[in-house]
Amino acid sequence: MPVPFSIEPFERARLIAGSVTAAQGFSAAAWCCGIKASGREDLALLVSDRPCSAAGVFTTNRVRAACVDITRERLSGGVCQALVCNSGNANCYTGEQGWQDALEICAIAARELGLPEELVCGASTGVIGQRLPMDLLRTGIPEAAGRLSEAAGPDFARAIMTTDTVPKEIACELDLSRGTVRIGMAAKGSGMIQPDLATMFCFATTDAVIPAGQLQELLREAVEQSFNCVTVDGDSSTNDMVLVFANGASGVEPSPEDWPALRETLFWMCRQMAMAIAADGEGATKLVEIRVTGARTDGDAKLAARTIANSPLVKTALFGRDPNWGRILAAAGRSGAAVEQEKMSLSINGRQIVRSGEPQVLSGEERQSLLEPARVDIELNLGLGSGQARFWTCDLSYDYVRINAEYHT
Amino acid sequence: MPVPFSIEPFERARLIAGSVTAAQGFSAAAWCCGIKASGREDLALLVSDRPCSAAGVFTTNRVRAACVDITRERLSGGVCQALVCNSGNANCYTGEQGWQDALEICAIAARELGLPEELVCGASTGVIGQRLPMDLLRTGIPEAAGRLSEAAGPDFARAIMTTDTVPKEIACELDLSRGTVRIGMAAKGSGMIQPDLATMFCFATTDAVIPAGQLQELLREAVEQSFNCVTVDGDSSTNDMVLVFANGASGVEPSPEDWPALRETLFWMCRQMAMAIAADGEGATKLVEIRVTGARTDGDAKLAARTIANSPLVKTALFGRDPNWGRILAAAGRSGAAVEQEKMSLSINGRQIVRSGEPQVLSGEERQSLLEPARVDIELNLGLGSGQARFWTCDLSYDYVRINAEYHT
Repeated sequence: MPVPFSIEPFERARLIAGSVTAAQGFSAAAWCCGIKASGREDLALLVSDRPCSAAGVFTTNRVRAACVDITRERLSGGVCQALVCNSGNANCYTGEQGWQDALEICAIAARELGLPEELVCGASTGVIGQRLPMDLLRTGIPEAAGRLSEAAGPDFARAIMTTDTVPKEIACELDLSRGTVRIGMAAKGSGMIQPDLATMFCFATTDAVIPAGQLQELLREAVEQSFNCVTVDGDSSTNDMVLVFANGASGVEPSPEDWPALRETLFWMCRQMAMAIAADGEGATKLVEIRVTGARTDGDAKLAARTIANSPLVKTALFGRDPNWGRILAAAGRSGAAVEQEKMSLSINGRQIVRSGEPQVLSGEERQSLLEPARVDIELNLGLGSGQARFWTCDLSYDYVRINAEYHT
Repeated sequence: MPVPFSIEPFERARLIAGSVTAAQGFSAAAWCCGIKASGREDLALLVSDRPCSAAGVFTTNRVRAACVDITRERLSGGVCQALVCNSGNANCYTGEQGWQDALEICAIAARELGLPEELVCGASTGVIGQRLPMDLLRTGIPEAAGRLSEAAGPDFARAIMTTDTVPKEIACELDLSRGTVRIGMAAKGSGMIQPDLATMFCFATTDAVIPAGQLQELLREAVEQSFNCVTVDGDSSTNDMVLVFANGASGVEPSPEDWPALRETLFWMCRQMAMAIAADGEGATKLVEIRVTGARTDGDAKLAARTIANSPLVKTALFGRDPNWGRILAAAGRSGAAVEQEKMSLSINGRQIVRSGEPQVLSGEERQSLLEPARVDIELNLGLGSGQARFWTCDLSYDYVRINAEYHT
């Protein structure tokens, strides 16, 4: 069971149904190849009816899957038309054979879709170090290609899941000066989330007309404020990527004055997906937002927020509903951010705990009730400047240990 | 139950009984003040019969307890004669009053021991953000002072424990060219262990004649190879310190040719304490040694080893006895160390898993039995140079979560 998470209010755009295929001209499909032992969907296709401007942000891990290098290479020209993604097996650390397998998957999809190979990119997620069952994929990809439909966005979102308990998707419609455009998104991620300039999976589509260069810039900024501000356990993966495809099917090209609305909408959508990932963190019972203000720089604020978010001691205390706030301040103190302990102020769920270095007295009842809610807001003011950051994480529970101790076997 | 841990063989010195008071001229005492809810010993004194050369290494956390600053200041002159240490309460983040309390504790001990205040240093460990029960300490310190004895080394080691399940102590006798000297040591630490140029507690004593400057240099090197290479959960504390006192009671001054033996003995003793801490890590079921070789530099090796040691995904897999080795390589890949995946080789408990980037086939039986032992040796060769490092950690179990979720309440 994930922590209940509601999409934050936003006035610029209208939420619509349809997930990653909400934008015009996109279709998707999902298929059960048999890679996942559970027998659930483990193969997903996303296809545009015409070539798209495309951009991507990738894991910075030096150990990475072949599909990361292949997709980055194919996106370097800024054009793409289809994505083939499997879950249940990352096809990472599988040697030269794994590289050939990744190429073959894209080739099969290209053949079935009638596209040039270089317009098809690939993504894989799951266990590391095991060869893909290529025989299953050789029959599965054609099966999926025969089932493409505009209604299959939610199926796509389900098929890219690993230990996620719920699919993550969002779509909206945005009125620009020259007409209406749509943006859709599907994401996955539950553990092993600490992107460094990349993240788990998020695939975004839009029917707006956006040149690849601008799309890449937009994506990089959006990721910095969303997927780069979420952590489940501090580990980062070998297969992470965030891709965005703009096929221009609406015929609407944003005017210069439309850009702020478009940017804000994309950033907000990415933040909703980031928070959904934290809420569905492996074993999570709490969604935690950490807001650091008063830092010397924004970088310092992010450093402190990230260190608090990754601290096993903070996360276990939150699971135990124990307002053991010293652990929060100690994590900030070791983060590398400039900190002066007599200037720090801390609030949890709106209750001030420390004011300028002096602890406030909590009643026994307050101690008991403070961390009851499934959503925890931690606000740390460092009292040194105007730097700030928001970061999202979850608590560390028995179920995190169970899920990850039993993941493989 | 800690993981069984046996002291590694060493030929230079003889193990002897006596813990932190094994060296001539040192006595200790422990007392139950009532700070710990369990009613166990929570106050410890360590006293020399004459002033000592003294050196210390301290936490680099910017949020730290008053006792850290007070002890560092008093040791800056290189002379000290006594230590008063309480467990169960860190007296950290207790504002101006906490600072006064820390000074008063040293003052009471000095009065009871008939010493100048500046020869007494203090240490506290336990929960952060709560005032010390000074009334209990005002009666407890005189009680302890009245019970000093040379036989109380093991009592001292027990009284400094927090979530430790076993005391950590070692003592040995070393023949030098001009006579025999003794070194004793008591340490504590179980969670919140990731020292950055400091550590949990370790208090060491010797009756050798060693000037303070040399003692400080020796200690810094020893810590770098021991307590700075152990982690339980990546968190580092506000109160950590390692102190060493040399009272010269043996009358033996090491000659220049004695230094290698003395250094090696101290380093080895510190490593045994570091490994004992990892073996008694909160909830640990496995003691894990990570040896990284073939790194471009020693610094790179340490970075990779530390990142592997701190990875929740590696640690939960070890708890689940799941040889999910991709997580080990992925952790090295994100560590920041130079890594080329086709040059990496990995062995676990002597079995080669990856050879120069190519995974080796494990039988089902091997997968099942590989991680059965309570001691796990991970050897990662990066294939890039001659840099190397050893690091120790433990696994991440349900009990880690239980201990830390319930710690405070």
